[in-house]
Amino acid sequence: MIVVMKPGATKTEISAVIQKAEQMGANVHPIYGENRTVVALVGDMTRVTREVFDAMEGVHQTMRIQEPYKLASRSARPDNTIIDIGHGVQIGGPEVIVMAGPCSVESRDQIIESAIAVKAAGGKVLRGGAFKPRTSPYDFQGMGEQGLKYLAEAREITGLPIITEVMTVEAVPLVVEYADILQIGARNMQNYGLLQAVGKVQRPVMLKRGISGMIKELLMCAEYIVSGGNTQVMLCERGIRTYETATRNTFDLNAIPVLKQTSHLPVVADPSHGTGLRELVPAMSRAAVASGADALIIEIHRDPDNAMSDGRQSLTHEDFATLMVSMRRIAEAVDRYISAANEDNAEELIELLAVA
Amino acid sequence: MIVVMKPGATKTEISAVIQKAEQMGANVHPIYGENRTVVALVGDMTRVTREVFDAMEGVHQTMRIQEPYKLASRSARPDNTIIDIGHGVQIGGPEVIVMAGPCSVESRDQIIESAIAVKAAGGKVLRGGAFKPRTSPYDFQGMGEQGLKYLAEAREITGLPIITEVMTVEAVPLVVEYADILQIGARNMQNYGLLQAVGKVQRPVMLKRGISGMIKELLMCAEYIVSGGNTQVMLCERGIRTYETATRNTFDLNAIPVLKQTSHLPVVADPSHGTGLRELVPAMSRAAVASGADALIIEIHRDPDNAMSDGRQSLTHEDFATLMVSMRRIAEAVDRYISAANEDNAEELIELLAVA
Amino acid sequence: MIVVMKPGATKTEISAVIQKAEQMGANVHPIYGENRTVVALVGDMTRVTREVFDAMEGVHQTMRIQEPYKLASRSARPDNTIIDIGHGVQIGGPEVIVMAGPCSVESRDQIIESAIAVKAAGGKVLRGGAFKPRTSPYDFQGMGEQGLKYLAEAREITGLPIITEVMTVEAVPLVVEYADILQIGARNMQNYGLLQAVGKVQRPVMLKRGISGMIKELLMCAEYIVSGGNTQVMLCERGIRTYETATRNTFDLNAIPVLKQTSHLPVVADPSHGTGLRELVPAMSRAAVASGADALIIEIHRDPDNAMSDGRQSLTHEDFATLMVSMRRIAEAVDRYISAANEDNAEELIELLAVA
Amino acid sequence: MIVVMKPGATKTEISAVIQKAEQMGANVHPIYGENRTVVALVGDMTRVTREVFDAMEGVHQTMRIQEPYKLASRSARPDNTIIDIGHGVQIGGPEVIVMAGPCSVESRDQIIESAIAVKAAGGKVLRGGAFKPRTSPYDFQGMGEQGLKYLAEAREITGLPIITEVMTVEAVPLVVEYADILQIGARNMQNYGLLQAVGKVQRPVMLKRGISGMIKELLMCAEYIVSGGNTQVMLCERGIRTYETATRNTFDLNAIPVLKQTSHLPVVADPSHGTGLRELVPAMSRAAVASGADALIIEIHRDPDNAMSDGRQSLTHEDFATLMVSMRRIAEAVDRYISAANEDNAEELIELLAVA
Repeated sequence: MIVVMKPGATKTEISAVIQKAEQMGANVHPIYGENRTVVALVGDMTRVTREVFDAMEGVHQTMRIQEPYKLASRSARPDNTIIDIGHGVQIGGPEVIVMAGPCSVESRDQIIESAIAVKAAGGKVLRGGAFKPRTSPYDFQGMGEQGLKYLAEAREITGLPIITEVMTVEAVPLVVEYADILQIGARNMQNYGLLQAVGKVQRPVMLKRGISGMIKELLMCAEYIVSGGNTQVMLCERGIRTYETATRNTFDLNAIPVLKQTSHLPVVADPSHGTGLRELVPAMSRAAVASGADALIIEIHRDPDNAMSDGRQSLTHEDFATLMVSMRRIAEAVDRYISAANEDNAEELIELLAVA
Repeated sequence: MIVVMKPGATKTEISAVIQKAEQMGANVHPIYGENRTVVALVGDMTRVTREVFDAMEGVHQTMRIQEPYKLASRSARPDNTIIDIGHGVQIGGPEVIVMAGPCSVESRDQIIESAIAVKAAGGKVLRGGAFKPRTSPYDFQGMGEQGLKYLAEAREITGLPIITEVMTVEAVPLVVEYADILQIGARNMQNYGLLQAVGKVQRPVMLKRGISGMIKELLMCAEYIVSGGNTQVMLCERGIRTYETATRNTFDLNAIPVLKQTSHLPVVADPSHGTGLRELVPAMSRAAVASGADALIIEIHRDPDNAMSDGRQSLTHEDFATLMVSMRRIAEAVDRYISAANEDNAEELIELLAVA
Repeated sequence: MIVVMKPGATKTEISAVIQKAEQMGANVHPIYGENRTVVALVGDMTRVTREVFDAMEGVHQTMRIQEPYKLASRSARPDNTIIDIGHGVQIGGPEVIVMAGPCSVESRDQIIESAIAVKAAGGKVLRGGAFKPRTSPYDFQGMGEQGLKYLAEAREITGLPIITEVMTVEAVPLVVEYADILQIGARNMQNYGLLQAVGKVQRPVMLKRGISGMIKELLMCAEYIVSGGNTQVMLCERGIRTYETATRNTFDLNAIPVLKQTSHLPVVADPSHGTGLRELVPAMSRAAVASGADALIIEIHRDPDNAMSDGRQSLTHEDFATLMVSMRRIAEAVDRYISAANEDNAEELIELLAVA
Repeated sequence: MIVVMKPGATKTEISAVIQKAEQMGANVHPIYGENRTVVALVGDMTRVTREVFDAMEGVHQTMRIQEPYKLASRSARPDNTIIDIGHGVQIGGPEVIVMAGPCSVESRDQIIESAIAVKAAGGKVLRGGAFKPRTSPYDFQGMGEQGLKYLAEAREITGLPIITEVMTVEAVPLVVEYADILQIGARNMQNYGLLQAVGKVQRPVMLKRGISGMIKELLMCAEYIVSGGNTQVMLCERGIRTYETATRNTFDLNAIPVLKQTSHLPVVADPSHGTGLRELVPAMSRAAVASGADALIIEIHRDPDNAMSDGRQSLTHEDFATLMVSMRRIAEAVDRYISAANEDNAEELIELLAVA
């Protein structure tokens, strides 16, 4: 850390900084300039907190040299983390994994139909919300455990592992019973109690960047989970809040290469929430693959006009299948791949559904 | 609500919108222009959801006419809500209430000393954190219940009611045992489970605006609490995230008059988190009083250089006392008042402290 | 336009709105709800200004139905505009055009060397700044006309047309003498005098989005140029200012598909300024091609460590050549193309340079 | 400046940084840590540019210690600059100066009537736009020189000095003929040619912060003017662009104390553009005085419903007079003053107007 003193800082103030730094175990190098003194702290910094120095009299500014996240950083682990989801799915390897499904589970039929469409188009994970964080207390809040049960049934039929959101500490055990991937939503990125709770279970977690989360904060939140013992964390870019209103959020695709460079954890792109507008999803999905995303999570609905939530940003099943074709070509152009569509199988599954 | 159709919207698409609106109970007025059709929905809108129309084919844009929050809005209740905190303190009336104290409770001595300083300067409520949300999992996380006990002891000595943060649903019963005001922190503004939990207790709540919370979202979150049955909600402006880095946050003082005009709930200003820099706190505290805030919450510390958190934005006890004098003058200039300092009493209390 | 009246708006206030709208030539449809009146204006809206209604007593809110830009909008001209730059280069067609070169022209040798590298790698336009807008009055401000002369010489040697910035109305005639494309920089997006000046010359213009420009404002600024008579306008996304500091700017790639959908004008991506960090340029360049950009403009330098400006975001000539290979693959994956490298020719050119 | 090298930086990279810094005249102090090297540069930094080091191989990050603006900084000149506007008006002294008037000069009558209202209420400077930067090329662009003539006539009648915007380099000589204060608008904050032009005239300048201008950029822009020889510069906060839409802009009042602390130049608050909504202007004007502004600039109109621009944010003459009374009380509460209303005189002036 670098501590820059104010021009008129007194000897006492400078000494206080040096003393405090030494107490904390740092090697201290003061540099006395004509106008200012700068104190450089190096060596073992584990016990050094920046805000302590920020608060001291005579200090103008401080600057961190090392990033505060350790376990999540690329320097802690140079190789990519590859997360095994089960059902033959790995995220972080050469295959670009596409997760898709409706915003909310609305009925048994609806989620199974979507699952079949996902599978048919080459998707590898089924998404669906059972507990929904809603801006208004008067809106649909999700089906709860029944929704989880339908998801599990869809998994049984299609073989697709499932990702679903867990919103509270209390719900963790329940959701762990059903989900292959636990999703932490954007509003909960800094819900530290929840991060600690999912840090204690051995289940892959997809952590979404908050709507105003800085990239380094996202990594600090991942650190909460990883430092709790659960190293299977994926980072998800899902759009940030800016002044621009042409898109619902500003899908910050720059975060993809930044995260890939600073962390070893797999990175997921969510173009549906990222843009909020279904007509932008195809272009931005292709761009996400080109930028280096390890996975995508895309909202689809059999009838977006009548979706109970997020219809505005949901693709139809047909548009999703078309998008998969074009993403597959982009994946190849960056020396990765997306699994082929298996539509034949879809017919079988639909029959199965009719029986079930 | 107004639904604007795209220029080339088909008759079927227009009919679908009209039909859906009628199903939802609205009176529907389509206006057929040369290029476009506009559908106005009026009447009973309780079951009409904007996002449903956003998602429909042929829809260009929708516009809400009525605000989605009902109970929190000024039109639902023209008179100011005045919240009785107990101990003779009312927020929302002619007195501008100053709440102050350290960021974290660090020890018995520290919190009692601060409490005495608050009281001596004319402050009316003691703040202090026992459970701290921290960006890094490696930072000090608060004293927990022991901190609550020290706060309660400080209250007993000084007679000041206390405000402290509750971070999780599970902690609500514990914090309710001690706190006179429950604080919902900025990171939890949209933690709906927590909002619902504090909506069920009869204890005043101070709800902080999230770091990227829109004013209308803050009001929707208040609606979660009020609609749960707890009408004693205060709204707190504490700085938003913008591109500017000269201040830690951008303290959005405009929110004060906006909230006073759109809602009947009392409005609190937090210039300490708002700016993040102690040297800006006095000017912005005075500005907050001038802009119409019903209360302020200010961080102070007996020794900011050695505070365990937020030292950078904490005033010394002396600077706080000086600030109180100048805020008192501003309060009078806007036809309100701030209680006088009672320093004599402080000496008595300090003696009491020595005894205790 | 839709004018929503306040709940308690008086008959006089409503009449005033109706009357004003009729004076302006609109067909007026008032809708009287239980609580509110909504006034819809349709028909000929050319003389109707939104802010007039915003300002009227009793008005709650207004909402524009049609976009205020006319000539720049996709509905005004459904087919893509293709701009002929000369020298066999067309922007807006199936070929994705890569423009590249140094931030500033620093010397004759430097710009010619860069031009040769651009050409060799398959780039089609040479960029280089002769007049530089600099944040500090103490920084290098560009070579001025001498820089333009060196650019022209580089064009003569390589056959690449050139793009360079024009910063003031007075400089327009001078820059027009040399440049094949006039660049309007981000700081000048709303310099209306300058927009009007370049609207009067018959030379392609690349208009950069301001650092806090909304997409609709960018289109309004294009409208200034097009309505002046110069229809050869390209729109350039170059990064916006947000709270995130991991990147210098937030390269808003979403703007690419949004602009392609709302306007017929060609869209250019500038990943160099967009991100501000050279290590992000390759991934974001590929993403830009995947998202549908018609052209890219990329900063390169023969020795970024010693560049006089923007070294931090400049690629070396070698890294640029490598990037071109990978962008070419992405272009093909979206059914477009980027011209092949012609390195043989480069050797000839370098000999030519030695002679010159 | 501090240059932090990457963990694996080579000796050659470190040497290159040291050598470059020495060439530029800095005293160089390298600190070799276990993992990293940090290079501190002190002494004469006039020739040291941060971006040069940002661009070098092996550099992780740089940090400026001294601010890049020199002449505008408080450390360059500890005492407040007081600017003499003529007509007995000084900005930066104990009196808080209120400037007011319509957005645009619309007619002779209108501007004189407003001038009389300003004077009657205790305002000291008349504002009015003759050249208007407008978002749409189809909107009213101002009366031009005729507007300046009417302003001059209003000054003659009332004795109020005038402030008006100059938008282009070419218009500087013309506007200087008429204006007592030259206003540089927010869109032109970084129009460096214009800043240089007004830096060469001896006339007070009010420089508005750009809609996304950082405070340090505003100071750098002031540096452009001051370094050109014109030291009579006022800095104006007028609202920034954020994600919040409840206000048209986010009036960043924090900028007032930040600017007062970092610069000796007078600071002006513009609550009209700052908020964009007339109902917020009174509260935010009072807050601006409380926060330490040296002057305010407020838009008023005799008939806001029929203003040709900015009616939404304009106060009526009556509301302005009422606001002046309450601001006067705030000024006194911060030990400053606002001149008394002189309504008697107003009657005289109105008679004068009738005659003229």
